[in-house]
Amino acid sequence: MALWGGRFTASTDALVTRLSESISYDRRLYSQDIRGSIAHVRMLARCGIIPGEDSERIQEELKRIEEEIRGGNFDFQEALEDVHMNIESRLIRELGDQGARVHTARSRNDQVATDFRLYLRDEIDYLTELLHHFQSSLVELGKRNVKAILPGLTHLQYAQPVLFAHHLLAYVEMAERDIDRLADCRRRLNRLPLGAGALAGSTLPIDRESVAEELGFDAVIANSMDAVADRDFAIELLSALAILMMHLSRLSEDLILWMSQSCRYIRIGDGFCTGSSLMPQKKNPDVAELTRGKTGRVYGDLISLLTVMKGLPLCYNRDMQEDKEPVFDAVDTVKLCLAAVAPMLLTIEIDDRRMLEAASDPGLMATDLAEWLVQQGVPFRTAHHRVGRYVAWCAEKGKKLNETTLAEMRESIPEAAAEALELFEARRSVEARNITGGTSSMQVKRQLAAWSEKLESLLAKA
Amino acid sequence: MALWGGRFTASTDALVTRLSESISYDRRLYSQDIRGSIAHVRMLARCGIIPGEDSERIQEELKRIEEEIRGGNFDFQEALEDVHMNIESRLIRELGDQGARVHTARSRNDQVATDFRLYLRDEIDYLTELLHHFQSSLVELGKRNVKAILPGLTHLQYAQPVLFAHHLLAYVEMAERDIDRLADCRRRLNRLPLGAGALAGSTLPIDRESVAEELGFDAVIANSMDAVADRDFAIELLSALAILMMHLSRLSEDLILWMSQSCRYIRIGDGFCTGSSLMPQKKNPDVAELTRGKTGRVYGDLISLLTVMKGLPLCYNRDMQEDKEPVFDAVDTVKLCLAAVAPMLLTIEIDDRRMLEAASDPGLMATDLAEWLVQQGVPFRTAHHRVGRYVAWCAEKGKKLNETTLAEMRESIPEAAAEALELFEARRSVEARNITGGTSSMQVKRQLAAWSEKLESLLAKA
Amino acid sequence: MALWGGRFTASTDALVTRLSESISYDRRLYSQDIRGSIAHVRMLARCGIIPGEDSERIQEELKRIEEEIRGGNFDFQEALEDVHMNIESRLIRELGDQGARVHTARSRNDQVATDFRLYLRDEIDYLTELLHHFQSSLVELGKRNVKAILPGLTHLQYAQPVLFAHHLLAYVEMAERDIDRLADCRRRLNRLPLGAGALAGSTLPIDRESVAEELGFDAVIANSMDAVADRDFAIELLSALAILMMHLSRLSEDLILWMSQSCRYIRIGDGFCTGSSLMPQKKNPDVAELTRGKTGRVYGDLISLLTVMKGLPLCYNRDMQEDKEPVFDAVDTVKLCLAAVAPMLLTIEIDDRRMLEAASDPGLMATDLAEWLVQQGVPFRTAHHRVGRYVAWCAEKGKKLNETTLAEMRESIPEAAAEALELFEARRSVEARNITGGTSSMQVKRQLAAWSEKLESLLAKA
Amino acid sequence: MALWGGRFTASTDALVTRLSESISYDRRLYSQDIRGSIAHVRMLARCGIIPGEDSERIQEELKRIEEEIRGGNFDFQEALEDVHMNIESRLIRELGDQGARVHTARSRNDQVATDFRLYLRDEIDYLTELLHHFQSSLVELGKRNVKAILPGLTHLQYAQPVLFAHHLLAYVEMAERDIDRLADCRRRLNRLPLGAGALAGSTLPIDRESVAEELGFDAVIANSMDAVADRDFAIELLSALAILMMHLSRLSEDLILWMSQSCRYIRIGDGFCTGSSLMPQKKNPDVAELTRGKTGRVYGDLISLLTVMKGLPLCYNRDMQEDKEPVFDAVDTVKLCLAAVAPMLLTIEIDDRRMLEAASDPGLMATDLAEWLVQQGVPFRTAHHRVGRYVAWCAEKGKKLNETTLAEMRESIPEAAAEALELFEARRSVEARNITGGTSSMQVKRQLAAWSEKLESLLAKA
Repeated sequence: MALWGGRFTASTDALVTRLSESISYDRRLYSQDIRGSIAHVRMLARCGIIPGEDSERIQEELKRIEEEIRGGNFDFQEALEDVHMNIESRLIRELGDQGARVHTARSRNDQVATDFRLYLRDEIDYLTELLHHFQSSLVELGKRNVKAILPGLTHLQYAQPVLFAHHLLAYVEMAERDIDRLADCRRRLNRLPLGAGALAGSTLPIDRESVAEELGFDAVIANSMDAVADRDFAIELLSALAILMMHLSRLSEDLILWMSQSCRYIRIGDGFCTGSSLMPQKKNPDVAELTRGKTGRVYGDLISLLTVMKGLPLCYNRDMQEDKEPVFDAVDTVKLCLAAVAPMLLTIEIDDRRMLEAASDPGLMATDLAEWLVQQGVPFRTAHHRVGRYVAWCAEKGKKLNETTLAEMRESIPEAAAEALELFEARRSVEARNITGGTSSMQVKRQLAAWSEKLESLLAKA
Repeated sequence: MALWGGRFTASTDALVTRLSESISYDRRLYSQDIRGSIAHVRMLARCGIIPGEDSERIQEELKRIEEEIRGGNFDFQEALEDVHMNIESRLIRELGDQGARVHTARSRNDQVATDFRLYLRDEIDYLTELLHHFQSSLVELGKRNVKAILPGLTHLQYAQPVLFAHHLLAYVEMAERDIDRLADCRRRLNRLPLGAGALAGSTLPIDRESVAEELGFDAVIANSMDAVADRDFAIELLSALAILMMHLSRLSEDLILWMSQSCRYIRIGDGFCTGSSLMPQKKNPDVAELTRGKTGRVYGDLISLLTVMKGLPLCYNRDMQEDKEPVFDAVDTVKLCLAAVAPMLLTIEIDDRRMLEAASDPGLMATDLAEWLVQQGVPFRTAHHRVGRYVAWCAEKGKKLNETTLAEMRESIPEAAAEALELFEARRSVEARNITGGTSSMQVKRQLAAWSEKLESLLAKA
Repeated sequence: MALWGGRFTASTDALVTRLSESISYDRRLYSQDIRGSIAHVRMLARCGIIPGEDSERIQEELKRIEEEIRGGNFDFQEALEDVHMNIESRLIRELGDQGARVHTARSRNDQVATDFRLYLRDEIDYLTELLHHFQSSLVELGKRNVKAILPGLTHLQYAQPVLFAHHLLAYVEMAERDIDRLADCRRRLNRLPLGAGALAGSTLPIDRESVAEELGFDAVIANSMDAVADRDFAIELLSALAILMMHLSRLSEDLILWMSQSCRYIRIGDGFCTGSSLMPQKKNPDVAELTRGKTGRVYGDLISLLTVMKGLPLCYNRDMQEDKEPVFDAVDTVKLCLAAVAPMLLTIEIDDRRMLEAASDPGLMATDLAEWLVQQGVPFRTAHHRVGRYVAWCAEKGKKLNETTLAEMRESIPEAAAEALELFEARRSVEARNITGGTSSMQVKRQLAAWSEKLESLLAKA
Repeated sequence: MALWGGRFTASTDALVTRLSESISYDRRLYSQDIRGSIAHVRMLARCGIIPGEDSERIQEELKRIEEEIRGGNFDFQEALEDVHMNIESRLIRELGDQGARVHTARSRNDQVATDFRLYLRDEIDYLTELLHHFQSSLVELGKRNVKAILPGLTHLQYAQPVLFAHHLLAYVEMAERDIDRLADCRRRLNRLPLGAGALAGSTLPIDRESVAEELGFDAVIANSMDAVADRDFAIELLSALAILMMHLSRLSEDLILWMSQSCRYIRIGDGFCTGSSLMPQKKNPDVAELTRGKTGRVYGDLISLLTVMKGLPLCYNRDMQEDKEPVFDAVDTVKLCLAAVAPMLLTIEIDDRRMLEAASDPGLMATDLAEWLVQQGVPFRTAHHRVGRYVAWCAEKGKKLNETTLAEMRESIPEAAAEALELFEARRSVEARNITGGTSSMQVKRQLAAWSEKLESLLAKA
């Protein structure tokens, strides 16, 4: 039946198929689907539920199908809706009754949950590797420019001088938390739903534990209804990726600011920038901007799945088919961004002269002066107040903080001594913050070294 | 350069291209891009900025390109990034210097904004037509079952009997607001950005007003920076579509509930349901569930773009390239859902006997009793209180509200009279609500007739 | 019953009351609730449903209650849950049977929908007024600095010089669309739900149209189920406010950038900045930052209500009580931000010398050179290419674009003439963009004047 | 200065204060703030940065202040903006120079991050306890009704019979993952930011490690810029709470469905339901509905903070002040919902007869028949196909699956035997699913017992 007087040219059947099908995106699960089916039929044979010979034949044929798909020679059909039915149908076409045994004691509900978990486990491992590369680039960039000093900002206003490498290490820490969150998510998802059937388990004497072991799951899921109704693992992964992208968006913002003509602290390699169709002089930090923009995409993916699951009664509802696209989209996006940002970092050249010049504005050393006063015994609030008065006085006179005489300084700060006039030097300020987590070169070098060692070891293994 | 020791097998260049390209999704703008370029070069010739002959040649070639693309014979190249450069490059390859004039006095920034607006204008018109078909199906389903009475629910608890058609008409009203919102959005987006250049306008003596007129825009955008920085129209469309999907999700929920074995009020045509891979007896309302699920997708699209635009400085930033995919995804999703739900409604068969049986539970007529008391002069709160007491008494005795004697009723409700015992009939209750907007058959038939007439006239024109 | 061994010290009753109550936030609807009740009882009397005398007494008492609440002398009780029951209970306590008639022919469902619409109608009017003030501040700031030239940015990179006032006018346009969206939302919400009862209308002979007229509604809602189930108006308002906050976030970002030490284009009045508890020299653009941050809050409010409404079956469900807090929060947030940002703008002092210096980087005039070549007959793409070559040559030689000889320029651009060397002046560039929407002072002054006139007239009326 | 011609009656100062202040919501951090300050000054004294005597005096005074606040006798002032300045100001007022030393070697940036982490650590512990109570109620409800059988649903359609307790245990599993996620979040947040200063650390010789130990943190944060810029812990908590609320929304949906007149499987205690202002017969599952609705609120809180943090440059920006309200709101909401839902569960009475009747529809045993065929050697797909044919035949004849003769069954299923006719019994079906995770009473009782033991032990400790 043609709909809408020819405007929506597809027939109703075609429309419903298009609405229902998932093969256009779940075909990427083929390898996990086959891995799961192989473990499943091996167990069925072990438990005497299907003949051992049938199990063998199914396994062989599944491997053949996998190769075909990998080679791009498999003809996926939309009418068969999803990757699972495409593979099973082919199996039955080839093996007849033998193939018809593969779906024994399982439902699409527990099958798809198993495949999805296996797939995300693989992706988490890969994301973790990419994060290590990303950290590695940050550390490398820091090591190349270990002396560079930058004006550290709060409220986008000059605050205190910091080492450029110290700033980069903040992102290494964020990535480490991302890795840690992925690991937690991996641990929680690494449980086997197979055997839950549609929702209630099976009347056949299956052995779920051995399937779990064969597929590398830590355990079976303890409740069959939970096994098919649960998508926590997907939402949790999306949450972790949303935070990860937030981190990348902040780094992007920093890079975009540093590359703007107002700062000109860095140059990003040409391969990561583009020009303008109208303005011949332009060189834009496109990769950073796109990465920042793609944050929205991953946030949206998270909200999508949270919304899908809200208020769904147990157990499986077809709405849950909408679980895969947001997760695939988020995973693909994060992989692409990490894979582009990490090498981009290695193309960055810095203008350490301009950085230092900016960081040398004596206003950034006002805190040093206050803390020096504390060391002379002045209570901090009083010190803060006096330095504030001195800053205001200098502003009024149009002088920088290091352009006054000691006598002038003493009008605001009676406790001032000659030494106080020597505080207004960025490198001195940086080195003075020599506590755990501080920005002194000793602390930062120690951090760089520790990360280098750790990452080299990890990446050597990968 | 191969990245990541062979794991991420693409070269950096390929990765950056993949991150940057939009041709994989913006090619759908080709017809709008060509329409815009034709109007642009005609104006350039009229204003004496390019030779008339060049304008003619460009127009001819653009039409040829359009035909090629429509026929699927155009070779889009990812390296050329987007639909605009793919078309312009081809133009230059064919026409040389003549083609090289097409981008005079414009930038990709104002060009893409123009194309996007033209495209969404077209989609809004189509969405409006689909909404009219959706309304038409609701009205038709109502007309077919004009006498059917349903238990109206609040809190998912039986509340009062209503006509099934009255319930459906509530969704017609929602769709009408959706149409109205789309129209407002269309009006606001129908302004021409072209001529804004990259951000500041052009030094060439262009005539933007005539381009606006030729492309059917109501006016030119009054500020060049706003013209290229604005994506309100896309967010506003996403908001309207999010609300629309919320409406569809509520209708889906109603249908799913009505089709559940607990209710069994409706049967949905087999073409819109599927079975289970495990359970042979299942018939599931998949189209309704998928539609409800896809609500999450459109909410996510909305949040994506809102996030992208948050805190972007003026004017254009590359992040804004992330504007199209969420909007395309939402538009496609809504079109698909409307196109599937509207014909599904026409396959619904109702079990009016089961509906009426449920609606005949005398508890649903408790309000009628209270309002009857008001008509006897009892203040409403007092009436409500007495009927409440009567309901409690019946519950305690295990009787239905219409199973007591008048004497028994009078113990709770001294003002009761014989007439009060006759109120517990669903159809009587429905007919008694004969006020504007009420559920009496007179009111509902009037509404059905008015909508029928309006929609027939609109769809005849379409 | 004390719960949790004393940890959650409230009793179950208190917990349920706390979960259920809305009086802590819906008390702000008191005036609308009373307005609605007065119109309602006047109609009930007109239609002969309650005695005229009772109607009079109720109206008097409601006015007394309103005064009491306004004066802060009304004792709201959480146990009575919401503002409606607090007022009705008091009415009944004072008037007995007469007061007990107020709730005749209505339900809390249609009552609360009515109050909420009346309230938001008022708030929209006020938001519109605040937006006019915001526009007015932008125009005033532009007029005060009508000659100032700023480097216009794309990708946060210098693009082309623009007038500072032109930049500000882009925000005036955004605010105008915000106002327009609020007006559309107001039009759609301005329909009366009262008379819909719980969901099905009333059996009493009420006259909804006259109530609509008395309360200033454009019409009654045509379907009783839609009337109580609809929250589109609240979501639509949240969408409009989310876009509005996105605009404010972009303006905030611009201001924060301009005030950073890297730019130092503007100073914001001390009253809108704060210092640091540690760093004595700091002056931070807090109001701009907070406004940017509060964007997240309004986005969250939007997602909240969209989520609440997703998949709710008709008609009223208690979930919908969660409609008010996000809307109130968003409205309050937007009002506060607009009320703080508008006067902040008037405290801005600009450093036009630094702005102009930045805008005078000859790279910003590269487009002018390309367009000049177009005027000499060179096809645009060729011109763009030649200027690009020239820019690259200058970069290699470490020269600015205006530091070469004509002979040197001709190596890249054979068509160059002496006139081409004179293009590199920011003011000349600005003035050359004298088309509709362009940044020339003629265009911008015209816009400033038009807005001034319009806003003065509007604010005079307000 | 009065703004807006008297409409916005507050002065600019008051508006800015209202925008900037956080004391209205961060006062709840007072106890953590004081705990942190005490540990801080003890360390300052140990390190010789301030006199030991001053440290003693400050500690005493802080404890006095804490008592005052706890007793409701502390006068918080909006003009002092936040809880930190309110307490410090008071300290200085009381102790003069001694009090002025408390803020030595710290900034509000690291101080607030410390307080926030301490606070959330406490809340996580409490949430965990509430989750244990929630699990306990589910287990208790299951144990009370250990024999009850329910129709298990997929797609809201009858699927297979399950034990009511098995269904409840699915939620126990979900809650266990919630607890697990909270524990991971707690572990990640349990690191000390104090000592990071505004962003770069301190020039004073502080000992961060000992402060960490004293406050129960596992370690210090390794990078000072990360320490003040990081809000991952708050977003991660919001993510965990969003998933938790999703779980509660699903349980609420189940309860609402079960209590609807279409099902009537359960009755919820009156204390957790309310009536209608119009309809005297209503009893509505308000607590379940409100809980489901409040899911939107927590999703919104999550999106709020993700949006706030998107694209913020390092380190602290004032936008980040918007971190607390969404987190407080989400924590309060979840606590309230858990505290109300857990006791509500204990008031549920079930109608096991109606449940069983529904679960006894023989269609629910179709899978048992297919699996029985598998046990007779029929390949699963063939078995599924034959049972499907049988189901269709029965539907056509208007018979239930257990109302045919063996001969009739054999027309569709040649392999059928007399035993096959005995499969259509719900309890038999339930008991047959006796595998790990299955719904047989053996499996379910084992689970109930294991959870009981675990929870009793945990709650005894709490």
